[in-house]
Amino acid sequence: MKAVEWLGDRVRILDQTQLPQKEVYLELGRHQDIASAIKALKIRGAPAIGVAGGYAIALGALKIKASSKAEFLHELKDVTRQIAATRPTAHNLPLALERMQRAAEAVKDVEQIKKALVSEAIAIHNEEAEATLKLSKLGAELIKDGFTVLTHCNTGPLATAGYGTALGVIRQATEQGKKLRVLATETRPLLQGARLTAWELKEFNIPFSLITDSMAGYFMSKGEVDCVIVGADRIAANGDTANKIGTYTLAVLAKENNIPFYVAAPITTIDPALASGAQIPIEFRSPGEVTHIQGVPIAPKGIEALNPAFDVTPHPFITAIITEGGIIGEPYEEGIKKIYGNLSP
Amino acid sequence: MKAVEWLGDRVRILDQTQLPQKEVYLELGRHQDIASAIKALKIRGAPAIGVAGGYAIALGALKIKASSKAEFLHELKDVTRQIAATRPTAHNLPLALERMQRAAEAVKDVEQIKKALVSEAIAIHNEEAEATLKLSKLGAELIKDGFTVLTHCNTGPLATAGYGTALGVIRQATEQGKKLRVLATETRPLLQGARLTAWELKEFNIPFSLITDSMAGYFMSKGEVDCVIVGADRIAANGDTANKIGTYTLAVLAKENNIPFYVAAPITTIDPALASGAQIPIEFRSPGEVTHIQGVPIAPKGIEALNPAFDVTPHPFITAIITEGGIIGEPYEEGIKKIYGNLSP
Repeated sequence: MKAVEWLGDRVRILDQTQLPQKEVYLELGRHQDIASAIKALKIRGAPAIGVAGGYAIALGALKIKASSKAEFLHELKDVTRQIAATRPTAHNLPLALERMQRAAEAVKDVEQIKKALVSEAIAIHNEEAEATLKLSKLGAELIKDGFTVLTHCNTGPLATAGYGTALGVIRQATEQGKKLRVLATETRPLLQGARLTAWELKEFNIPFSLITDSMAGYFMSKGEVDCVIVGADRIAANGDTANKIGTYTLAVLAKENNIPFYVAAPITTIDPALASGAQIPIEFRSPGEVTHIQGVPIAPKGIEALNPAFDVTPHPFITAIITEGGIIGEPYEEGIKKIYGNLSP
Repeated sequence: MKAVEWLGDRVRILDQTQLPQKEVYLELGRHQDIASAIKALKIRGAPAIGVAGGYAIALGALKIKASSKAEFLHELKDVTRQIAATRPTAHNLPLALERMQRAAEAVKDVEQIKKALVSEAIAIHNEEAEATLKLSKLGAELIKDGFTVLTHCNTGPLATAGYGTALGVIRQATEQGKKLRVLATETRPLLQGARLTAWELKEFNIPFSLITDSMAGYFMSKGEVDCVIVGADRIAANGDTANKIGTYTLAVLAKENNIPFYVAAPITTIDPALASGAQIPIEFRSPGEVTHIQGVPIAPKGIEALNPAFDVTPHPFITAIITEGGIIGEPYEEGIKKIYGNLSP
């Protein structure tokens, strides 16, 4: 299974909205197709969005007819704007777009720029895959044999176009021979836990139980959870972390029950330009995702629903942030500065 | 709309599993039919289960052929056992069954016992309706004009066969002219919030937004919630409260964000025989309620899911418990003793 694959003149993705019922691959030849796929969550997960964004720029560039560099860059900016506008919260996407922009500017000839952009997109993909494997190996040290690990949303290969973040850590610990049990929250409204994490855990042969989001507190209060581990969409300079809606709740519950709460993310998810989580843009999605489940209405017609797709967990609730550059704790500001300085993407 | 209605020789209920799509009434003539309806959540909500339980005993009694009191009571015990076995957590049910048992024992002649049981069931229903109206009026004092009130699960007329508990308080405050806004959690797995509370709030013309359970923390952390109010299924002598799964989580989030957390329940929900919430039996329901939503599978086939239907909120998280006997706070043990002594059901 490959969540995102570059095929030279198009990108092949596994349509995540159809899992687990159907395994459908889509081949996307235009950057607009990738933009639509990101908006519709056919590709999702902060690192995977970054990877897909890189490929989208490459595809857009291949189709630009301009012969002068200035004209080419002007048209490329329009492509970039369309991709940037898809989803606001994950940091990996704007970072990948910046990186693609720099790659384009560094080359003189238009045909060479196109080649450079394809190479850069592939490099982003490879580096993200390596980063997630590395952070998963580091994070696995925190997971002890016999642990029950609670996780939220989906953070495996599907979400990262690599090895995984939170789910990568769980996977690595298991590959090291530790016997784990996972509690996977279904993650309403779009059920990434029930549909995708359950599907991946089944593939990896890791024992797990699916629970609703509202049940996490029950199992924590019963002493049945040894640690919580989640991914991230954007991490501010002070360690405040935006992640899938419901993450803040799990962090508050974990603190109340003295359970370690870990965030696992590649350095590309860190946004050192934001002082705190209050500045992270939170995407509000369609109310229809709340009033309907997989197209089936679950509420009376015409009612109002709200749908914030992410929330921010303040850093005091986070026991450690696991990155490929190391595992950091309080004071996060220092740790993040050091790691980001060493391994700036 | 009447959630439960006595028709002399049968009970008419509104099938809550079909709401909000269909308004289907069922007429149930045998106690076994009521037992099945309670198990299947066609009738649900602690007070409504108590009311339905009383009528089930009356129906069962009407069908008993025995002519001696001893034989009659023996057969009645079997009916009672079947009703008691339907759902374990709500206290209103065993309390109603005890009361029916006492009513039967107090009369000599079998035909008179039957009449007494019908009267007693109707009395339980009327008293529960009065109690919920009274507690709603008392509780409304806690709700200020302009408040945004967050509530969980369903606690209106459907759940109480009366006026409502948490939703009754909201209703009363609105009837007093206060302008409120409600945030209603959908309440997975069975979506009582999305299906039933949304339906009732729409009927009452109270402005509300539906959210997933995982979004409550977001709105609390943003300062958009003025208080949380929920119902209860069983309250121990120390104030620990069992209620729909997810309630404990809301209480922890409310405390973290300095938001008052209220429990509204008739005195019949209080179980003074239990010292603390640790002794409250928690029902685990079918995993299929987690892996499927309204019959549609949302997870890969054959996976394991867990389904605790209730959780316990320890009393230190509860700002006040609202009953028809008064509003009580810490020390709950004293307050509960006093109220229960005065108004023992």
